[in-house]
Amino acid sequence: MVKARIPEAAIRRLPVYLRALEELAEDGVEVVSSAELAVRAGFTPEQIRKDLAYFGAFGTRGVGYDPQLLSRRLKRILGLTGEVKVALVGAGNLGTALARHNLTRHKEVRIAAIFDRDWDKIGKSIAGVEIQPIEDLEEEIRAQRIKMAIIAVPPGEAQMVADQLMAAGVEAILNFSPAKLQAKPGTHLQSIDLMTELQALAYYTSSGGAVTEPGAGEETRAGAGR
Amino acid sequence: MVKARIPEAAIRRLPVYLRALEELAEDGVEVVSSAELAVRAGFTPEQIRKDLAYFGAFGTRGVGYDPQLLSRRLKRILGLTGEVKVALVGAGNLGTALARHNLTRHKEVRIAAIFDRDWDKIGKSIAGVEIQPIEDLEEEIRAQRIKMAIIAVPPGEAQMVADQLMAAGVEAILNFSPAKLQAKPGTHLQSIDLMTELQALAYYTSSGGAVTEPGAGEETRAGAGR
Repeated sequence: MVKARIPEAAIRRLPVYLRALEELAEDGVEVVSSAELAVRAGFTPEQIRKDLAYFGAFGTRGVGYDPQLLSRRLKRILGLTGEVKVALVGAGNLGTALARHNLTRHKEVRIAAIFDRDWDKIGKSIAGVEIQPIEDLEEEIRAQRIKMAIIAVPPGEAQMVADQLMAAGVEAILNFSPAKLQAKPGTHLQSIDLMTELQALAYYTSSGGAVTEPGAGEETRAGAGR
Repeated sequence: MVKARIPEAAIRRLPVYLRALEELAEDGVEVVSSAELAVRAGFTPEQIRKDLAYFGAFGTRGVGYDPQLLSRRLKRILGLTGEVKVALVGAGNLGTALARHNLTRHKEVRIAAIFDRDWDKIGKSIAGVEIQPIEDLEEEIRAQRIKMAIIAVPPGEAQMVADQLMAAGVEAILNFSPAKLQAKPGTHLQSIDLMTELQALAYYTSSGGAVTEPGAGEETRAGAGR
């Protein structure tokens, strides 16, 4: 399949380009150079050109991109042409934050179903969407033909939820639990561990960034061939 | 500076390797091949070897890595040798989720101060940390010598908070607001927009992944030279 060859990092940058292009289109800009788009999106022009090249030819050489045209194309590539419905499992603090965030932005992606197993939450609504019992998950997801889901449950429950989602036909899952999940072939699973992000961030403080000294006595040999 | 040359994506994978190595060490494993480490961490052996090569020589050729030794080194590289204190600004749903998450895991990174501007929240605690008024932010961060911070405030307030954090000496910021923030030179700013992640995920569903057809009539010319 062609999609598999495109780096995930490139795919994850497309929505950032899309947002920048939509802003430019709203501002009435009709042509934008990759340099200008780069400033708006916060990447280098080379990065943008390289990422877009995976998907074919865009824009006019020496002139630039038409923001409206390119944003339409990026939406098509991403599968955001219609409304994309998402199921949210877990209506705790994180799930609630996600659902509320959703209300105010990003009309392309909409949380269309929320599930929890806490009967104190079931029947209440977040951002206009009623929380349903997790027992109804498969039936509801099939009925609404939902293909994407967010997991925001405690780590011990995450794999079970993922299995139920996949059984119901969900093709792409964003996992916020710190559990390492197994996905069946054909399902895309993206995990975001908020604390892993924090650990990586420490590298950029004055205490981070220590590079091991060659010859410090601990390693025995350079080994690129393991 | 050497750190600038190492791809951010590689830095962000180090904590994932670190966690896998710590699990292996806990299991009593004394030597692990890059293939075994790859399975545990969820990356390819090539990726792991390439990422580690940025930081020098590790392990023994033909034998493998010592999980304890390598995890000590990764901690040193990341700056996680002592306890890393983090300030959290914004005690809404997302901030609360982050602070609670923090309590149960990851002893290396600790949320040591929480700020909000809502007087209904100030004085209360999340996971044992008292919420302080945002007016005290600079003084408290200086007093505790905190170098890392999380922004979980509404987008309209995010830049002001970022400016205060940088003025107080914070060197690395994880921004969860959807605002695009300006960082001063020397400050590392990492933004996570949860909905951007969702948009990228749509690519992996059956409605996503459409590649524009060459000759569809909309583009005028291939342009790598913009």
